[in-house]
Amino acid sequence: MATHKLLLLPGDGIGPEIMTEVKKIIAWFNARGGDTFETDQGLVGGSAYDAHGKSISEADMAKAMAADAVIFGAVGGPKWDKVPYDVRPEAGLLRLRKDMQLFANLRPAICYPALADASSLKREIIEGLDILIVRELTGGVYFGEPKEIIDLPNGQKRGIDTQVYDTYEIERIAAVAFELARTRRNEVCSMEKRNVMKSGVLWNDVVTATHAARFSDVKLSHMLADAGGMQLVRWPKQFDVIVTDNLFGDMLSDVAAMLTGSLGMLPSASLGAPDAATGKRKALYEPVHGSAPDIAGTGAANPIAMIASFAMCLRYSFEKVAEADLLDRAISATLDKGLRTKDIASEGSTVIGTSQMGDAIVAEL
Amino acid sequence: MATHKLLLLPGDGIGPEIMTEVKKIIAWFNARGGDTFETDQGLVGGSAYDAHGKSISEADMAKAMAADAVIFGAVGGPKWDKVPYDVRPEAGLLRLRKDMQLFANLRPAICYPALADASSLKREIIEGLDILIVRELTGGVYFGEPKEIIDLPNGQKRGIDTQVYDTYEIERIAAVAFELARTRRNEVCSMEKRNVMKSGVLWNDVVTATHAARFSDVKLSHMLADAGGMQLVRWPKQFDVIVTDNLFGDMLSDVAAMLTGSLGMLPSASLGAPDAATGKRKALYEPVHGSAPDIAGTGAANPIAMIASFAMCLRYSFEKVAEADLLDRAISATLDKGLRTKDIASEGSTVIGTSQMGDAIVAEL
Ligand SMILES: CC(C)[C@H](C(=O)O)[C@@H](O)C(=O)O
Ligand SMILES: CC(C)[C@H](C(=O)O)[C@@H](O)C(=O)O
Repeated sequence: MATHKLLLLPGDGIGPEIMTEVKKIIAWFNARGGDTFETDQGLVGGSAYDAHGKSISEADMAKAMAADAVIFGAVGGPKWDKVPYDVRPEAGLLRLRKDMQLFANLRPAICYPALADASSLKREIIEGLDILIVRELTGGVYFGEPKEIIDLPNGQKRGIDTQVYDTYEIERIAAVAFELARTRRNEVCSMEKRNVMKSGVLWNDVVTATHAARFSDVKLSHMLADAGGMQLVRWPKQFDVIVTDNLFGDMLSDVAAMLTGSLGMLPSASLGAPDAATGKRKALYEPVHGSAPDIAGTGAANPIAMIASFAMCLRYSFEKVAEADLLDRAISATLDKGLRTKDIASEGSTVIGTSQMGDAIVAEL
Repeated sequence: MATHKLLLLPGDGIGPEIMTEVKKIIAWFNARGGDTFETDQGLVGGSAYDAHGKSISEADMAKAMAADAVIFGAVGGPKWDKVPYDVRPEAGLLRLRKDMQLFANLRPAICYPALADASSLKREIIEGLDILIVRELTGGVYFGEPKEIIDLPNGQKRGIDTQVYDTYEIERIAAVAFELARTRRNEVCSMEKRNVMKSGVLWNDVVTATHAARFSDVKLSHMLADAGGMQLVRWPKQFDVIVTDNLFGDMLSDVAAMLTGSLGMLPSASLGAPDAATGKRKALYEPVHGSAPDIAGTGAANPIAMIASFAMCLRYSFEKVAEADLLDRAISATLDKGLRTKDIASEGSTVIGTSQMGDAIVAEL
């Protein structure tokens, strides 16, 4: 029986509150027998800045590198709006992604049947929705250099960011998308702006070549990213797996998440490449939603996205498919009983708080 | 009585068909008396490439520079998917924007009452929607250098694009947004990714400073562009004017257009700065939709976005507010009668073709 090392990084805002609920789930699995989880905890984001003047300390970075998986809450808030760029809360998350080389960000957008009416879209458009956005996470305009603000001789300033992609970066994220498609409906749609961006031209070429060489059994289509945004709103069920770059993935996955009306429900996984010797991959799991500073401390936060992120951790880091399914079913069953946090409440449902929601899911397990 | 010189650039796909309908409208205004419009016509996009091997000829560029306004259809199609990057159809449009210095792209997203049910969003979310996206159009990642694909020593390729903004570029587009907000509900929301991009930090700083210096009567808010995409889907009526950069504007305006369910209905204006001597500004008007090669030649295209673009031309290039209102009302009245092209048809409506729709709007005038 194995022991898996988890590093919990609750972060800011509602992060600590929703992490508390994940701890209940972890405790339940530990009590149940079988593999166990050993947890350690660290600071990231504004809370790390307040403690150390950095958005993540070297000690916590070292723990993250050594952990079997990192469970991440959320970072940021108005309190840190004025801190220097290099130590802003988001820098901690970006450093984790970069140093752990978590190039593959998996963002499922599914519509929970019990919540189909919570969406701003018509029920028939989103009922049964199940798409997976595979976002490149360690390249593109997020990390390209130069990235700076310079003073011009005329007294003005110039802001510069650089979008950069190398062949291997596109190849490996495309391979992840194709492999995942094979476990689903076997379709991948790749999105870029090749009509405007040279990196988009290369993206399109490399995805096409990777497909031809290794994944020709998967159906591949291409769409311009702006048209992709439109089509997500018009008829999202046309998609199975979408693969796209870091910035387009940021935008498109947020749009996709909001379609479902279940933003507080959606988890994500950020994965590295399997280690050549051990086959293990570094991984970080986080909810798609942010730190929601406006409701932090009120006990109203929805912990489901955070708990569902732990289900993804069971699935992708530890290949515990049965356990992951069990946890996902417990979430669905809790919703089916009409229990809701405030963000997803509707007529006739019973509104409960963060902690009660965690308890209800544990009870369901 | 003045004569205004218009250059018509129908482009590819359905472009020529919908331009034919605008000509009917122009003829109606000419017959009516008052100012008249003199039209000339040119090639752009794939059709220009087929004729000249370039996506716009120097002669047509010169005509565009000399015209009082350019009326543009749409460019692109699968036929030209393999033409070299520099002469691809889109290059013609991008050159027009850049050489005419059309830095301000106005994209209204309104929901026509008669079409509220055509949207994938619930009626209550989009009924009465009236937002204006002000997109920067001559800067950012669209034009920044370096923009190239290079061969690396290891045999791989690297695709590079550069996002660049100078203070004055942000200042002038912000000013356009604030001025337009004053004629509307007096609210501007500025969107960028300052948590990841240095150009976003500068964008935020300059918009804030421009507001404080010259437009403090307007209500200003800031939103991260990914959150902006979400909020457009969740509750679009929270916005009045949105100001954002070239690439985010491309994505966000497409999402906003699709919200209304009226993509075939939405016009846009691209404006330059007023000339210091004459006060005149260069301008190009085009529908938000593309060239729809799949339906080109079938007579099914919806000409309304193109005709509404001419209404924007009356309004912004010639200050003919009464005439623009008249034309906009004629469009609404035609819809109220239940006349629809196929893309916007619903139960009980009468489906008509491109040419009949043009005729119906002329009849309404
Ligand atoms: C917090 C921020 C840096 C981050 C991003 O832009 O990637 C977030 O929006 C996300 O999508 O994970
Ligand atoms: C055709 C293309 C170059 C263009 C753009 O990306 O700007 C289009 O999508 C638009 O929004 O006008």
